[in-house]
Amino acid sequence: MANHTLEGNRLETIPRQPVSQPALINAVEGTLADFLACQIAALDAVDPALGGFARTARDLVMAGGKRLRPTFAYWGWRGVTGAAEPVEVVLPALGALELMHTFALVHDDLMDESDTRRGRPTAHRLFAAQHGAKFGGSAAILIGDLCLVWADQLLARTSLPATTLLNVRACYDRMRIEAIAGQYLDVLGETDPDSWSVERALVVARHKTASYTVQWPLGFGLALAGGDPRLEEAYREYGLAVGEAFQLRDDMLGVYGDPAVTGKPAADDLRTGKPTTLLMLAHQLATAEQRAELTTDLAGAVIPAEGSGELNPIARRARLITETGAPARVEEMIRARVAEGVAALADAPIHSDVRTALVELATAATQRPA
Amino acid sequence: MANHTLEGNRLETIPRQPVSQPALINAVEGTLADFLACQIAALDAVDPALGGFARTARDLVMAGGKRLRPTFAYWGWRGVTGAAEPVEVVLPALGALELMHTFALVHDDLMDESDTRRGRPTAHRLFAAQHGAKFGGSAAILIGDLCLVWADQLLARTSLPATTLLNVRACYDRMRIEAIAGQYLDVLGETDPDSWSVERALVVARHKTASYTVQWPLGFGLALAGGDPRLEEAYREYGLAVGEAFQLRDDMLGVYGDPAVTGKPAADDLRTGKPTTLLMLAHQLATAEQRAELTTDLAGAVIPAEGSGELNPIARRARLITETGAPARVEEMIRARVAEGVAALADAPIHSDVRTALVELATAATQRPA
Repeated sequence: MANHTLEGNRLETIPRQPVSQPALINAVEGTLADFLACQIAALDAVDPALGGFARTARDLVMAGGKRLRPTFAYWGWRGVTGAAEPVEVVLPALGALELMHTFALVHDDLMDESDTRRGRPTAHRLFAAQHGAKFGGSAAILIGDLCLVWADQLLARTSLPATTLLNVRACYDRMRIEAIAGQYLDVLGETDPDSWSVERALVVARHKTASYTVQWPLGFGLALAGGDPRLEEAYREYGLAVGEAFQLRDDMLGVYGDPAVTGKPAADDLRTGKPTTLLMLAHQLATAEQRAELTTDLAGAVIPAEGSGELNPIARRARLITETGAPARVEEMIRARVAEGVAALADAPIHSDVRTALVELATAATQRPA
Repeated sequence: MANHTLEGNRLETIPRQPVSQPALINAVEGTLADFLACQIAALDAVDPALGGFARTARDLVMAGGKRLRPTFAYWGWRGVTGAAEPVEVVLPALGALELMHTFALVHDDLMDESDTRRGRPTAHRLFAAQHGAKFGGSAAILIGDLCLVWADQLLARTSLPATTLLNVRACYDRMRIEAIAGQYLDVLGETDPDSWSVERALVVARHKTASYTVQWPLGFGLALAGGDPRLEEAYREYGLAVGEAFQLRDDMLGVYGDPAVTGKPAADDLRTGKPTTLLMLAHQLATAEQRAELTTDLAGAVIPAEGSGELNPIARRARLITETGAPARVEEMIRARVAEGVAALADAPIHSDVRTALVELATAATQRPA
């Protein structure tokens, strides 16, 4: 593999193909950093307050994260594209997915009233610290909007034939619609958790996460490669199965995750009462007595004094959920979906290194600690 | 002019060119209605709750309004394009501007906590009536997001050469960035009105309104026509001057407008303390005594009993602003800007009917009652 200097990228050299996961993330982040530096300079020139606003957006984009969507898009592209094809061509498009993801996170965190993300204050909290909660909310809406438009601008820098880009955009648009629709179902579910069900929670998982995190990024990568009808079905099956498993892992982390690793508050889903598949299953499997305790509101729960020997109400709730058998059932569902995703690739006409990478990703994305 | 059946449009026949303003608006709204019907059907098929969500978005888009951005874009296009060119080609692009405008209005109304728009409840109020204020805010964010993505989808349906559409998109992206940046300066100004100034208010007017309402829509139309460097400067000058005059008229209506005509609450800007050019000028021109009264907060003002003969505090504040001489000064500024805009077109190489239309629009947009 020849080394190659990435144009417009901070990295001196990255191997052409196959790139390692850290090298890929470095390359995407370098593309993002260069693009954002230009945008910040332009807004700074209009008004220093706008420069500050743009820098906050950049810091949120660059704060890390798993970069799963660019990764799935990359492998979706590589399924068709040979290992010798330079990755530089598609880097702006991969970066655009990450900008779009920042848009989704910033708006979601505002809706969920989350205080932290990736271990740092969320956008609305950052701005609330400057000029109060109302300003915090408004500025967070605008940060999200800005990232969504930036994503389009970066996507437009992808040097591919116009008809290819048209198909990429069509795919991207469907992905965005699904993410918005899934989030709407999510906030709707929270208004009336009692009317929710395991089936409804899985519909949300399919639309909000599976299609948005795995299925469409893979399809987006396929479109970047000019498309291949033989792969569409395999990518779709793999994407939905692995994407649902990803959301089910998120449900588990939302109750049992270590805040030091997830970067989110402990047992966030219990505090907000989000009707996830895990919690809906717990309700379904609970005895009458357990169910009565599961439906009490934790929002005003009193935390017992340390050393009193009592479990705090959040920890008690988490244990109760374990006792219903729901987490074990969710673990089974995750395993079944990963197996289904892997099976969908078995006969797909993709390069063997791509199959290996996607099988590894299916496990990594669903057995993660954060 | 031959009559022509619009493809994908509800209108049986519209004249090719020149179309009247009502016929143009009808054609844009027909394009929007057809596009939105497809999107609603697709979301309805996923989940009826999503269909309801999409219908609310459609109702907000179709609730009327001046359709100024498609209008300016149309004339921007027609400045270059001959009168025989069928308007159908650009209708999706003109409709996209209106979808983008709904995005901006829905998010702005949420940030401004406005209760009504075009005489109807704002998006966040509609949803708050269903499931409370928190849900109302979340759903309004998502309605805005949805409209912004729909705008891209409709824009993609414009049947023009790929390179032309690339330039249209670049123009559209800059327009969106300016609208977001202008809105950020707007909400920032409200956090600390005392630090604001006439100059700063004019910067906001230039970015939030002038460029977004007139300058970029004209440039967008020019890009749809394939561009013409000889027109860029004339459109820019006209756009900024007329756009600023448009915002100054908005400032006047925000204090003196008739709520039955504007569809917004009376003296909305006085209630929110928005530091508009009008209000900044009133502060600048006020005597020390007047200034002391101008800086008292109206949020907690007590409304006197009817028949007490006292003016309510809002009406008293509006009269005080008149007494400073600020409204008369703003009227002068509007006249000067309209004259400047008209002058910028004098020697521009555009069709004479287009010049006439833009001169009329400059007056209509700045001498409007709503």
